[in-house]
Order: sequence, then C-alpha cells, then structure tokens
Amino acid sequence: MTRYNKGANAERELIKELHKAGFAVTRVAGSGVNPLPCPDVIALKDGRIIAFECKAWKGKYLAISHESMDEESEWAEIAGGEFYVGWKVPREGWLFIKKSHFHKTEKNYMLSLHDAKKHSTRLNVILGIQSQLTIKHA
Amino acid sequence: MTRYNKGANAERELIKELHKAGFAVTRVAGSGVNPLPCPDVIALKDGRIIAFECKAWKGKYLAISHESMDEESEWAEIAGGEFYVGWKVPREGWLFIKKSHFHKTEKNYMLSLHDAKKHSTRLNVILGIQSQLTIKHA
Repeated sequence: MTRYNKGANAERELIKELHKAGFAVTRVAGSGVNPLPCPDVIALKDGRIIAFECKAWKGKYLAISHESMDEESEWAEIAGGEFYVGWKVPREGWLFIKKSHFHKTEKNYMLSLHDAKKHSTRLNVILGIQSQLTIKHA
Repeated sequence: MTRYNKGANAERELIKELHKAGFAVTRVAGSGVNPLPCPDVIALKDGRIIAFECKAWKGKYLAISHESMDEESEWAEIAGGEFYVGWKVPREGWLFIKKSHFHKTEKNYMLSLHDAKKHSTRLNVILGIQSQLTIKHA
C-alpha cells in the first residue's frame, strides 16, 4: 500500500470511530481550496468542535512543519475548537497529542514516539465518553 | 464552463467571503468519504457553526432530493449548527434559504426563485455583521 493510501485509510477509520460516538464528522477537501489550511478531520457535536490533523507514520519521531502546525492550530482557535494531532502508529493504533507537547526545532515541531505515548490522550476521553484513567493508591 | 466548474467557482467565492468575515472555513471532501452526507461548506467562529449546501442553478425552481436535504440538515443538527441552502443565481448572486422555506413534494424539496428571493437571508446577517433591514415608517 502506498503512503497515501495508508494515511487515507487511517483517516477513514478515525472518521468511523467519531461517527459511532455520535459526532457529525467531516473530512476536509484537499489542499489549495481553503484560504487558511485546515485540519484533516473535524468532529462536531452540540456545538463542540474538535479538529484533528492526521499522520500515519512509522518511525521514532514525528515532524510537522511550523507552517502546517501553526496555521491549523490557528484555524481551530478561530473556530473556537480543540486541536489534536492524531498519530497513527502502524500496528499500534492512534495517539492523540496536543500541540503544546511538541518541541519546536528550527524547521519543525517534533515529537518522539516515547513522548507521544506519554502525553497521548485516549480518543474516548477526548470525546467525553470516558474519564482519563488515574492510578489509585489504597 | 461546465456545470461542475460553475458550482466549484461559486463555492470558492462563498469561502472567500466567509474567510474575509473572520470565520474558519472548510470545504468538505467529495461524497462517499463521510459516513453521513455533510453540507458542502462549514464556517466556524468562536464555537458558532454554520453549514451551507451550495447550489449554482439557473432556473425558476430549485429541487433538492429528500435524502440530501434530510441527511445534511440532520448533520447540522447533530453538530449543533445552523443550516442554509445557498442558491447561487448566475449574474444575480447568492440567496440563503432555510430548509423550512422549501415545499416538500413527492420526490424533492422544492423552492421557486420568487419564494427564494422573498425568504432569503443576507450573508452579512447570517454572519452577524449586519442586522436584517426592516422598512421603517415615519
């Protein structure tokens, strides 16, 4: 499967999950059409807005250009919504990470797989279906 | 110009207007990708959600299938947004009409150009930039 297909399939899976959770979902049209670059997938419910930039990426580090990340998070801010980077790790599943957990290097926003796993929020928690698990001591 | 190009150009114009008015805008990807058919253009600002189904149509009547109209208005309802049909009349401009102003026939939701002009809301009013003009008597 080409890299494009893997990304498109990953997006389609996420869209199905969001739809099952009762959200109105939209996949955004390809680049060049929107005046301000917009995240890939938008989920909406009762006025709540969650925007996802989706990356299917096999590797120890994920890099997103300053331009993409800043424009997309600005888009979500104007909308009044939340913004997550969804990192689909092949054979492991999705990690959902906020922009604030990326490190800014000269050219990119970078995140290691290790840090992504540490800071990832579960989709069910983002969607408000489940509270984040906390370790309880007796 | 083909019918497709006219429609795409009309959408692009609308997207520009929405962007100028300070909205985060998105053009939705083609059919088949979204589980529930979604309106063509979504404008968002500070949590406000406005969804537009766009039709570039030269004729005295506009017809939209029950399926399209019902699924798209349901999408907007789940999202917690407003829903408008944008009718771009060649050489006249846009008319924005609510679903409730269409007549339900056996196969379609129908609206005459005459009624569309009567019930149309101005874009600036929808966006909250201008109040609807009312005729004042001295």
